Amino acid sequence: MIGRRKPRLGQVEGAMRRMSDGVEAALHCALVLAGLPPGRVLTGKSLAALHGLSDSYLLKHLRALAEAGVIEAVPGPRGGYRLARAPAAISLLDIVAAIDGTEPAFTCREIRRRGPGKAKEPCVYKTDCFIKTRMLAAEQAWRSALQGQTLQDLVADGDRLIDPQNKAAVARFVQDEQR
Amino acid sequence: MIGRRKPRLGQVEGAMRRMSDGVEAALHCALVLAGLPPGRVLTGKSLAALHGLSDSYLLKHLRALAEAGVIEAVPGPRGGYRLARAPAAISLLDIVAAIDGTEPAFTCREIRRRGPGKAKEPCVYKTDCFIKTRMLAAEQAWRSALQGQTLQDLVADGDRLIDPQNKAAVARFVQDEQR
Repeated sequence: MIGRRKPRLGQVEGAMRRMSDGVEAALHCALVLAGLPPGRVLTGKSLAALHGLSDSYLLKHLRALAEAGVIEAVPGPRGGYRLARAPAAISLLDIVAAIDGTEPAFTCREIRRRGPGKAKEPCVYKTDCFIKTRMLAAEQAWRSALQGQTLQDLVADGDRLIDPQNKAAVARFVQDEQR
Repeated sequence: MIGRRKPRLGQVEGAMRRMSDGVEAALHCALVLAGLPPGRVLTGKSLAALHGLSDSYLLKHLRALAEAGVIEAVPGPRGGYRLARAPAAISLLDIVAAIDGTEPAFTCREIRRRGPGKAKEPCVYKTDCFIKTRMLAAEQAWRSALQGQTLQDLVADGDRLIDPQNKAAVARFVQDEQR
């Protein structure tokens, strides 16, 4: 029998589809790193301070981004993080997947096999349940939408939309903190 | 400072985007209810037994479906559940939203406002962050994909794809259990 998973503290019961809040942090950090001059890096500590986040919180997400090949960690006393490839070659999906994983949101537990009189032979279930197929296809629409947008799009958005004061504040900080 | 939300037991750290498993149960139950003759109902207990689920687990989701107006609860000693409207008028989004809520998956905590030198005036932030805008637009693609598919599509899938033994097992059970 499938029991009920308790909702996490502070989360509306049933609304279990919340994306890791690390995604927001990762996107913002990637955007800042896109503004670094070639060959320069920013430390995790600097990125955390720039975004008002705790070091330990952000470092975990930066590590995930590095593991996924979105950013690279340059080791050593003058080390830090930089993008692993050009902004145009990094999709929003790359960043989201690095933090949030690639597992589908839809949970299929093969309910179709359960209950009185159901067939037991595996061959009856060799293709996915059509419910699962449709749900995964809908998620693919979301995934494609993210895949079709890049960090370069965010850079262009930023140039166009970020308030001059904030733009200057970030530029100043990056100038002072880059290695 | 934003701290890290602990991953739920059994869930891969970072993969926090899992949809409530109640969605699968709700979709299967809605499909079974779509096969009821007019005026007939099935009890929550029957639906649970048919899907090999515990009563308490399923009843919560059936209540959510009823609250959302997808199914209706007929009270009384011969009471039970039936669809609230025709299968063609129930989208997959209606069912998913009833169980999983309508909150976006993307969590925006307005990181853009944090950090040294950032503007404090609210008017600077009167439009959404472009990162949030893009993320929500991607989710809308998913939502639209779900909205464009109905329970009637699942009925048609079922007629075409469900193994004859399973189709017969469900029909037999529904025949015996309907009120």
